[in-house]
Amino acid sequence: MTRGRRRGAPDTRAEVLRSARVLFAEHGYTATSVRSIAARAGVDSALVHHYFGTKADLFMAVLAVPVDPRRLLEPVVVAGAQSAGAGIVRTLLGVWDDPELRAPFLAVFRSVLEPGGDVLLRDGFLVAVIRPVLVDLKVDHVDLRLALVASTVLGLLTARYLLAIEPLASMPDVEVVETYAPVLQRFLTDPGVVAGSGQQ
Amino acid sequence: MTRGRRRGAPDTRAEVLRSARVLFAEHGYTATSVRSIAARAGVDSALVHHYFGTKADLFMAVLAVPVDPRRLLEPVVVAGAQSAGAGIVRTLLGVWDDPELRAPFLAVFRSVLEPGGDVLLRDGFLVAVIRPVLVDLKVDHVDLRLALVASTVLGLLTARYLLAIEPLASMPDVEVVETYAPVLQRFLTDPGVVAGSGQQ
Repeated sequence: MTRGRRRGAPDTRAEVLRSARVLFAEHGYTATSVRSIAARAGVDSALVHHYFGTKADLFMAVLAVPVDPRRLLEPVVVAGAQSAGAGIVRTLLGVWDDPELRAPFLAVFRSVLEPGGDVLLRDGFLVAVIRPVLVDLKVDHVDLRLALVASTVLGLLTARYLLAIEPLASMPDVEVVETYAPVLQRFLTDPGVVAGSGQQ
Repeated sequence: MTRGRRRGAPDTRAEVLRSARVLFAEHGYTATSVRSIAARAGVDSALVHHYFGTKADLFMAVLAVPVDPRRLLEPVVVAGAQSAGAGIVRTLLGVWDDPELRAPFLAVFRSVLEPGGDVLLRDGFLVAVIRPVLVDLKVDHVDLRLALVASTVLGLLTARYLLAIEPLASMPDVEVVETYAPVLQRFLTDPGVVAGSGQQ
């Protein structure tokens, strides 16, 4: 904030985070380079990588989610596409039903639904976090399936947590998995879903 | 706004709407009576019914949506539960893909996702508009199926319109119906969906 700040590490880290937050929100994840973030923060790209790792790692730091969804989704990838529907729902519930994690995740979720926050979800979280999972699962028509999975998960999060619609809000995890896994599985792997979608 | 206003019809109408808006938002649709709205507005219940019709009609006036979804969903009820999945998606797209209607609907949708607006959706729109459709369709486990239908529709609206996630945002209506109708149909009529849900 102050102009005459020291170039010490904490200030530099904060400045890089601020620059990344602004550029990701303005231009999205894809169109924002680590170089442009570094330039705006007045530091070298190498320093950005040193502090934060990859561009995706930096994006996760900007989102400030309390756990890294990429790490949580690793077992889903290992288990393979044919069980990914249930795996994704189970992973999601594991985070959102944890009383320590729900509030911070809900805050992030609210912020990306607000005008201006949408790009962080659409060309941010989905591209940096969820798309690589679908690529690693080797599903076809990645972008279409990504959009359908996103819509299902967004609906579940909105209905169960944001709006707390009963009886879904109080439904035991195992029943939520039974209910939503078939929807996600169809959207992830059913050839019929893309039948009409031509060149997607 | 002014204290010394005339008791003329336009003022009274506006006062009833204001009272209804406050009470529905504070206590939800179910717990708010026409009598309590009339009392707050300083008028007789009969006058509220005279101006607005039923409590559900008054609620629709509060929401200020440009078309009445109850009217739009009538053909879905007439066609019956076995085709309601496709019918609901088709009705939804008919409204949201109309360039004149999308902006006002999006404004209502944003407002109910905000803190404080949630009750208007959860214990308002769903109870006054969508639940009667499921009751008329004679589906079992109405509240569970209502919650699942709501989550699917909320996800579709959020992904396609609010966040404009491609290729879903540009997908032709007929393909959106093909993609989502089976999900809604399963949630509306499949006995398997409620197998684990006991007394719902």
